Amino acid sequence: MADLRVAVIGTGIMGADHVDRLTRRTKGATVTVVYDYDQARAAEVAAAAGARVATDAFEAIRADDVDAVMIVSPGAFHAEQALACFEAGKPVLCEKPLATTAADAYRIVEAEAALAKPLLTLGFMRRYDPEYAALVASLRNGDLGEPILVNCKHRNASSGGNGSDRAVVFDSAVHEVDVARFVLDEEITGVRVILPKPGPNRANDIHDPMLILFTMASGRLVTDELYVNTNAGYEVRTEVLASKGIATIGLEVGRMTSHTTALTWGGGHVADFRPRFATAYDIEVQAWVDAVRRGDNIDALAATSWDGYAAAAVCEAAVEALGTNGAEVAVSLAARPSAQT
Amino acid sequence: MADLRVAVIGTGIMGADHVDRLTRRTKGATVTVVYDYDQARAAEVAAAAGARVATDAFEAIRADDVDAVMIVSPGAFHAEQALACFEAGKPVLCEKPLATTAADAYRIVEAEAALAKPLLTLGFMRRYDPEYAALVASLRNGDLGEPILVNCKHRNASSGGNGSDRAVVFDSAVHEVDVARFVLDEEITGVRVILPKPGPNRANDIHDPMLILFTMASGRLVTDELYVNTNAGYEVRTEVLASKGIATIGLEVGRMTSHTTALTWGGGHVADFRPRFATAYDIEVQAWVDAVRRGDNIDALAATSWDGYAAAAVCEAAVEALGTNGAEVAVSLAARPSAQT
Amino acid sequence: MADLRVAVIGTGIMGADHVDRLTRRTKGATVTVVYDYDQARAAEVAAAAGARVATDAFEAIRADDVDAVMIVSPGAFHAEQALACFEAGKPVLCEKPLATTAADAYRIVEAEAALAKPLLTLGFMRRYDPEYAALVASLRNGDLGEPILVNCKHRNASSGGNGSDRAVVFDSAVHEVDVARFVLDEEITGVRVILPKPGPNRANDIHDPMLILFTMASGRLVTDELYVNTNAGYEVRTEVLASKGIATIGLEVGRMTSHTTALTWGGGHVADFRPRFATAYDIEVQAWVDAVRRGDNIDALAATSWDGYAAAAVCEAAVEALGTNGAEVAVSLAARPSAQT
Amino acid sequence: MADLRVAVIGTGIMGADHVDRLTRRTKGATVTVVYDYDQARAAEVAAAAGARVATDAFEAIRADDVDAVMIVSPGAFHAEQALACFEAGKPVLCEKPLATTAADAYRIVEAEAALAKPLLTLGFMRRYDPEYAALVASLRNGDLGEPILVNCKHRNASSGGNGSDRAVVFDSAVHEVDVARFVLDEEITGVRVILPKPGPNRANDIHDPMLILFTMASGRLVTDELYVNTNAGYEVRTEVLASKGIATIGLEVGRMTSHTTALTWGGGHVADFRPRFATAYDIEVQAWVDAVRRGDNIDALAATSWDGYAAAAVCEAAVEALGTNGAEVAVSLAARPSAQT
Repeated sequence: MADLRVAVIGTGIMGADHVDRLTRRTKGATVTVVYDYDQARAAEVAAAAGARVATDAFEAIRADDVDAVMIVSPGAFHAEQALACFEAGKPVLCEKPLATTAADAYRIVEAEAALAKPLLTLGFMRRYDPEYAALVASLRNGDLGEPILVNCKHRNASSGGNGSDRAVVFDSAVHEVDVARFVLDEEITGVRVILPKPGPNRANDIHDPMLILFTMASGRLVTDELYVNTNAGYEVRTEVLASKGIATIGLEVGRMTSHTTALTWGGGHVADFRPRFATAYDIEVQAWVDAVRRGDNIDALAATSWDGYAAAAVCEAAVEALGTNGAEVAVSLAARPSAQT
Repeated sequence: MADLRVAVIGTGIMGADHVDRLTRRTKGATVTVVYDYDQARAAEVAAAAGARVATDAFEAIRADDVDAVMIVSPGAFHAEQALACFEAGKPVLCEKPLATTAADAYRIVEAEAALAKPLLTLGFMRRYDPEYAALVASLRNGDLGEPILVNCKHRNASSGGNGSDRAVVFDSAVHEVDVARFVLDEEITGVRVILPKPGPNRANDIHDPMLILFTMASGRLVTDELYVNTNAGYEVRTEVLASKGIATIGLEVGRMTSHTTALTWGGGHVADFRPRFATAYDIEVQAWVDAVRRGDNIDALAATSWDGYAAAAVCEAAVEALGTNGAEVAVSLAARPSAQT
Repeated sequence: MADLRVAVIGTGIMGADHVDRLTRRTKGATVTVVYDYDQARAAEVAAAAGARVATDAFEAIRADDVDAVMIVSPGAFHAEQALACFEAGKPVLCEKPLATTAADAYRIVEAEAALAKPLLTLGFMRRYDPEYAALVASLRNGDLGEPILVNCKHRNASSGGNGSDRAVVFDSAVHEVDVARFVLDEEITGVRVILPKPGPNRANDIHDPMLILFTMASGRLVTDELYVNTNAGYEVRTEVLASKGIATIGLEVGRMTSHTTALTWGGGHVADFRPRFATAYDIEVQAWVDAVRRGDNIDALAATSWDGYAAAAVCEAAVEALGTNGAEVAVSLAARPSAQT
Repeated sequence: MADLRVAVIGTGIMGADHVDRLTRRTKGATVTVVYDYDQARAAEVAAAAGARVATDAFEAIRADDVDAVMIVSPGAFHAEQALACFEAGKPVLCEKPLATTAADAYRIVEAEAALAKPLLTLGFMRRYDPEYAALVASLRNGDLGEPILVNCKHRNASSGGNGSDRAVVFDSAVHEVDVARFVLDEEITGVRVILPKPGPNRANDIHDPMLILFTMASGRLVTDELYVNTNAGYEVRTEVLASKGIATIGLEVGRMTSHTTALTWGGGHVADFRPRFATAYDIEVQAWVDAVRRGDNIDALAATSWDGYAAAAVCEAAVEALGTNGAEVAVSLAARPSAQT
C-alpha cells in the first residue's frame, strides 16, 4: 500500500520532532509538504525529510500531494487550520490544545459533526504512554477496585521565561484535564484554583506553583499540582487511590539506569517532555497513520475533537477560577452533537 | 545516676508500646507506676514491666515513686492530667493531641507559663524520625534552597470502623499540622477543606478521602491528603518543593527488602504506625528521659505546649472548614505567653 | 524509495515476532516471503503479513522478490542459510547464535571476508537497548572512569523443560559474552565455569544455576550468573564497577508502574525477553533496514560475523570448562581476516 | 536491677562508638573502665563516659568494678584478651575477627568448652540488622522456598591506604563468611579466590576487586565480590536465589530520602559501616547486655566462638586460595567440642 503523504504545519521544536518521527520511524508515512511561518526553518526541516516547503498553511492542507495533515502550529491557529482540513476532507492530527478558547473548540466539534465521518485526532499523547496504559488497564480490569481520587503532578525544569497563568492552564494543565477525563472516564463539572505565594524561580509573574482541583461528574476529586520552574527536571506523575490499592506512575526512580558515585546513589532525570514521552508520541503517530490508511481516520484510543472541546471548556473555567480565591467555578459543556457520541 | 521513675497513664496500644519501650530500650528510665481505666489491662502491662498499678490517674501523677509522667490516655483527658503534672511539678511527655479543643490546649499553655520552668513535651514523634530529620536538614543547610510548597499524604490501612471527621482531623491531620509548622518554621494562618465523594471503604460515614490545605503565614501552601481506609497499608509521605530541587520522604520503595516472585517485584508494606515510626518513638522517648535527667525537662527538638495549642487551633479551624465548601477559615492564635517564647 | 522486501526464515516465537515487527512497525520494510519447516505455521504468519510462503529456505533466500533476509531458524541451520545469503549477495540479519560451533561460525567469517562488502548483521539486540546504551555511554564519555569488573545476571522464569548445559551456554550465556566484549571493547581470553549444586526447579538435568567467569584480554573479570528456572520472571542485569563509580542496569524497580495493595508495595515483573527487549528489537531491526536501504548493509552499532564467531569460540571454551572443575580454559581465536578489521 | 559494669578494651573508631552506645543508648549498662594502648585517647573517651582509665588490658578485665568486657582491640590481641575473660569468669563481647589465625581461634573454642558455661559473644552484627533479619525470616518461614545460591557484594569507599590481601580477607570477607553460614545454616567446605586485574584505585598493592567463592556443605554456592576502594560509598548487598523467588537486601535505593535536583534523581549514600549498621550494633549490644544481665551470657541470635573459629578457618583457606589460581582449597574444621554443640 502506498505511504500516507503528510503535510506538517508548524516546524517548531514539536513540529520538527514530528517530521523526524514520520520520516525515520513511522511506518507507512511520508512527509511531502512542510509549512512554517519561519520559511527558513521550514526549508531546513523539509530538506532533512525530502519534502517540499509550502508558502501558505492552507495551500499545504489543500495540496494534491497531501493525504493527511499534522497541525503543530501555535494553538491560536489550530481552529482555522482544522476547519480547512475538514473542508478538504483530510484526516488531521492536531496537537493540543484543540483551540485557545472553548468557543473555537466547539466550532470544530460542530463542523466535524456535519461531516460524513469524523476526521480529527487530538494529540493527547499520554493516552499512548505505556505507563498510563498500564495504570488505566489496572483500573479497567478491576485489579485496583473502584477509583476514588487522582493526584497529578506536572513539573517542568523551566517555563522558558515567557508565558502567563492562562498559558500554564491551556498548555500544561490541559494534559491533566485529559488525564482526569481519560482515567476516570467521566466529565469534569467544576474547577477550583489555589494560588499560593509563588516561588523565587517563577518567570514572567506567573503563579508558580499552582494547585488546580477538578470535581468530576461523580463527585470524585482530581488534584493537579503544577510547578513549571523547578530548576530540577521534567516530571509528570499520576497516582490513583482506589478501593483495593493505590497505583503510581512517573516516579523517576522507575526509569533509572542507576549509578553510585561519590556518596550519592541515583540516576539521571529527563530534561523535558521529549525523552519522557518519546515512546508515547511514536505509538500515537503510528496509530494515527495506521487508522488513516485503513480508512478509520481516528484510532480507537485517540482523543477526539469532543475531548479537545471538553478540555478547553475546563481550561476556560480554570482561568476564571484564577480570580475566585478558591471558590469552585462550574464547567458547562455545550450539547454533544449526536454524530460525536 | 538513678533511673527516672516514670508513671504511664493509659495502657492502650500506644501506652503499652511506651511501657515496653521504657522498660526494654530506654536508658535511664524505669516504669514504676501504670494506670488505665481498664484495671485488668493495666495489671497485665504493669506485670511485664515490674511496675505497680495505680487505681487513679491523679494518684499516679502525684505518687512519691514517680519522677515524671507519660500521658497516653484518650485525648479528652490530656488537659486535666497535664495540669495535674504541672501542679505536682513533674515533667510530662503528653501524647498528641495536647487537648481536644483549642481552649483546653490554651489553658495548658497559660498554666505552664506561670511555672518557673516549662514541664511539658508534646509527643509529635515525627520530629525525631530520621527521614524527617534528613528532610529538615536539607532545608536548614540550604541544599534545597527556599521551600515553596509542601505535599503531605497520610494513609491508614483502616480507620478501624469508628471515628468521625473531627477525629480524623484531631488524630490524624494533626500530625501534618505539626509537620507544616516544623518543616517551614512558621505558623498556619488559614485552612481549607475539600470533601470529594467518599470511597466505598470508608467507615462510619466519615469523609474519606479528605483534602486539607494549609496557608502559612508567608503565603506558602501545604497540602494534606488524608485517606484512612486504603485497604493497603500505612504510609506517610512528605514532599517539599524548593527553589533548588524537590525532596521526598516516605516512599515505600525506600524501605524495602525486595523480593522477586511469580511475576512481581517489590517488598512488604508496613501495616500501621508502629513499625513505621518505631525508631522515631525510641529516639523521642530517649531524648525526653535524657532531658529530664539532666534537668532540662524538655529536649531542644521536642514539640512544646505552644506547638500543641497551635495545632489544636488549626484543627478547630479545619473542623469549621468542613462546612464551608472549600472557603478558607482563618486560624486565630491567642497571644503567646512571653515565658513561652 | 521502495520498501525493502524481506524474507523471514523461521516463524517460531521469535520469527513470528519479527514478521509482526517488520509488518507493523519497521519503516521501509515489507515481508514478502516467509519460510518455516512447519508449513502450516508459516502460512498462518504469512497471511497476517500479506506475504507468500516458500517451501524451501534456500528458495526463499534466492527469490527475486526478496532483497534481504532475516534468519530466525534454529541455530544449527544458521551457517548454511547465512552462506546462501552470501552466495545470493543479499544482506542478512541473523539471530544469535551465528552458529552452534565455532568452526561453523568461522566458515561464515571467512566466506564473508571474500565478499566485496560484508553482508551479515548478527542479532545481539542488547547493543540497541536504551539501558545498555546509557551504560556504555557513561563509560565511553568517561563519567564512570575506567571499567574494572562487570557483573551479569541472566534469569529466566523457566527454561521450558528442555535444553542442556551446552544449550544454556550457546543460547543464554552467549548474550553476556557479547555484553562483555561490547561493554569493555576487548576480547575474552579465558573462561571458567563453576557448577554449584542445582536448585530443585531445574529441568532436564541441566546445571542451574551456573556461574561463568570471563577473563578479558586486559585481565579484567566479567561474571555471569545464569539461573534459567527462577519461577519468578525474566531479568537481565549488568553492573559495571569502575574507578569513579558503579553503574547498574536492569533493576526491576527501574521499570515499574508501582502499586500498593494489601501490605505490599511493588510492580509487575516481565515474564520473558519479549517485553524486556521489545524496544531493543524495534531499534535494531529499524537500524538494519535503514542501513540496508542506504547501501551500508550493516549498521555501525551492530554485531558482525566476527562478533558472532568470537562469541561462539568463547561458548566452545565454556562448554569445555563445564568439565574442568573451575580451571580456566583458554579461548583461542583464529586470525581475523583483514577485510573484517 | 543494677547496671552491668562494662570494661571496653580498645577505643579506636569502633571502640569509641561502642563506649558512646553503651553510655547513651544501651539500657542497663555502664562503662566503668576503658583501656587503650593510646592512653590519651582512652582518657578522652573515658571522660565523656564518666569511666576510669586502666593502664593495662588485663587489669581492666580482672577489675572488681567490671562485670563484663567488650574487646574492641586490634584482632591480634583478641585471643589473649578473650582467654583472660574466661579466666576471670566474665562474659565478653568480642569484635570480629575472633582471632587472626584459625589456631588461635580454636584455642578459644577449646578453652571455652572447658568452662561450666559459655561466655563469649562474637560481634557479627549483621545477624541483628533488620534487613538481614527479614531476609533470613523469609527463608526460615518458607516464603522463598529452598535457598539455592547467595550473592554477596562488599564495597568500601576506601580501604584507607593500608592493608593487605590477608587483611581484606580477615577483616572484610569474614563478614560474608558468617553471612553464608548464618543465612544457609551450614558449614563452608571449600573456597576459591579469583584475582582479576586490580583497578586503579587500589591502595597498597592489594588485589582489589577480589572474587571469593564459597562451597557449602550441601554443594550450594556463595559468591563474595569484594571491592574496597570504590571511591563511591559503603555498600553491602546480599541476594538469595531460592526456589520460589529471589530476595535482595542492601540496595541503596532502599534507604533513600530522595531528592530531585538539576537533572538528577537520587539520594545520599552512606560513607562507611557506622551509619549502615548503627541499628544492628544497637540491637546487638542491647541483646548482649540483656542476656548477660539475665544470666544467659549469650543471646540466642548471637555468633559464638565456634562461629568465630569456623570463620577463621574459612579465612585461612581463602588466604591459601589466593595462590592457587582459582583452584578450590578445602576447609577443614577441627572437631567441635560437645559443650559447644
